[in-house]
Amino acid sequence: MPHPPPDPDFAARVRASFARQAAMALIGAALDAIEPGSVTIELPVRADLTQQHGFVHGGIVGMIADSAGGYAAFTLMPADASVLTVEYKINLLAPAQGERLIAHGRVLKSGRTLCVARADVYARAAGRETLIATMQQTLIVMHGVSDGPRV
Amino acid sequence: MPHPPPDPDFAARVRASFARQAAMALIGAALDAIEPGSVTIELPVRADLTQQHGFVHGGIVGMIADSAGGYAAFTLMPADASVLTVEYKINLLAPAQGERLIAHGRVLKSGRTLCVARADVYARAAGRETLIATMQQTLIVMHGVSDGPRV
Amino acid sequence: MPHPPPDPDFAARVRASFARQAAMALIGAALDAIEPGSVTIELPVRADLTQQHGFVHGGIVGMIADSAGGYAAFTLMPADASVLTVEYKINLLAPAQGERLIAHGRVLKSGRTLCVARADVYARAAGRETLIATMQQTLIVMHGVSDGPRV
Amino acid sequence: MPHPPPDPDFAARVRASFARQAAMALIGAALDAIEPGSVTIELPVRADLTQQHGFVHGGIVGMIADSAGGYAAFTLMPADASVLTVEYKINLLAPAQGERLIAHGRVLKSGRTLCVARADVYARAAGRETLIATMQQTLIVMHGVSDGPRV
Repeated sequence: MPHPPPDPDFAARVRASFARQAAMALIGAALDAIEPGSVTIELPVRADLTQQHGFVHGGIVGMIADSAGGYAAFTLMPADASVLTVEYKINLLAPAQGERLIAHGRVLKSGRTLCVARADVYARAAGRETLIATMQQTLIVMHGVSDGPRV
Repeated sequence: MPHPPPDPDFAARVRASFARQAAMALIGAALDAIEPGSVTIELPVRADLTQQHGFVHGGIVGMIADSAGGYAAFTLMPADASVLTVEYKINLLAPAQGERLIAHGRVLKSGRTLCVARADVYARAAGRETLIATMQQTLIVMHGVSDGPRV
Repeated sequence: MPHPPPDPDFAARVRASFARQAAMALIGAALDAIEPGSVTIELPVRADLTQQHGFVHGGIVGMIADSAGGYAAFTLMPADASVLTVEYKINLLAPAQGERLIAHGRVLKSGRTLCVARADVYARAAGRETLIATMQQTLIVMHGVSDGPRV
Repeated sequence: MPHPPPDPDFAARVRASFARQAAMALIGAALDAIEPGSVTIELPVRADLTQQHGFVHGGIVGMIADSAGGYAAFTLMPADASVLTVEYKINLLAPAQGERLIAHGRVLKSGRTLCVARADVYARAAGRETLIATMQQTLIVMHGVSDGPRV
């Protein structure tokens, strides 16, 4: 990314927010690398995440892609801002199977109001990684809105 | 839909396939209406489905939209075919909160190889329904491929 | 739409803006109905609009869908605001052929900053209309920005 | 791309097909580099391609992105196959202005029936290039269907 993040504590802010995402705990997803403009999420494959063919459900692949792109955007936001997904589009390229899925989110354009991110999702099996999905996403920066519970 | 479904037992076939989607059980989603070309899925809101603001995670909204659109397409497929999501694009329109979410999937175009579907997701709270998301989706028909486990 | 448009002269504002879209003149597109929250654009099919099979180019179908959705959003904006497309996603459902294409844009959600619209594109041939494309789109309201030339 | 193209004359095939796209001539777009799995299209900026602010119309940006991704996919198809766009999703990141636009299409996944491509569009002004749009696209391979006129 060309710009340094406005909040030097971006990684701690991402970790705190991710810890509040109960849905990530439900599926067993965990944060991995957090860099300015990029975030990686890992998801061990489990039987209770699957669809009818025994692959991880495309919606769950979408969940980790959505969170990886959203937190990549969040790394570049000011400390007093919050982030919401406006929309995302995901292509499922290959069956989501193996030992674990890895979603790499990356910011393409970071604006004052909107942010555009991409996430590529890989499946790791027997030491090999296969690209299984790619997502393009739009996010909105909510200035002055706490990242914590609102309901 | 202009065409009657080629498999008169489409509803039983959808119920059997949905029952094999372990991911739907994990989040507590259930099938509601199943008609030729349309399927409705309901999801009671639970604390373990939320993101950092306390709303249902956008990825989980995407999961039920993806399944609703996919099963809407599946109702129109021959008995020996299986369905896979090629891609979907979802706009999140309002916070996913309330008592339950309802995803209505509907087929826009059903072809021999590809199918295009839409899903609208509503949140029900205190007797009122609010449109919270809308999805546009492409699916592929896999002729001669069993809908059961492949791994 | 549940809300009346904030600018009662919305139709004149749409017509003036459309007249400034040189690209619409290049392809021969014209405005048809303009209602609060919806706009229709017509495009007579011409040989110089086609792709290699002799159908209207998918990108040109996207052009009129983009403009129809964008102007549908513009009808609901204040008089001093301008509109820009953030993103759109279009499914091409059938060959774009016949005498003319008709793009119906419609607002799904109109917010202070963002607007979500849909456009369905039909081909008319020998008195029959066929749905040939459907688009889902996100737009941004630029408050206090003139709709006229900026370059 | 990991696989060599099945048709060694892929570049001539792309040039012949592009020459049949009357819509590309209408807007003044031209082919640049053609490699296995990637194609570049250039578009000199002209006043008759603009929207109301004087920037190139987002739909025209979509046109060259659609063609760049589609022809990138076409380079990897057998000699007797044709290509059609199933859907595309484009984010407009910055105003499309300057001297020329350059659309780089690239294949992400090439399958027997479906192909997924991406296109990034840059604007060149005074020797500098700015990323102004990014597109994600699904295409279908039509085996045994001539690429020439069908109407």
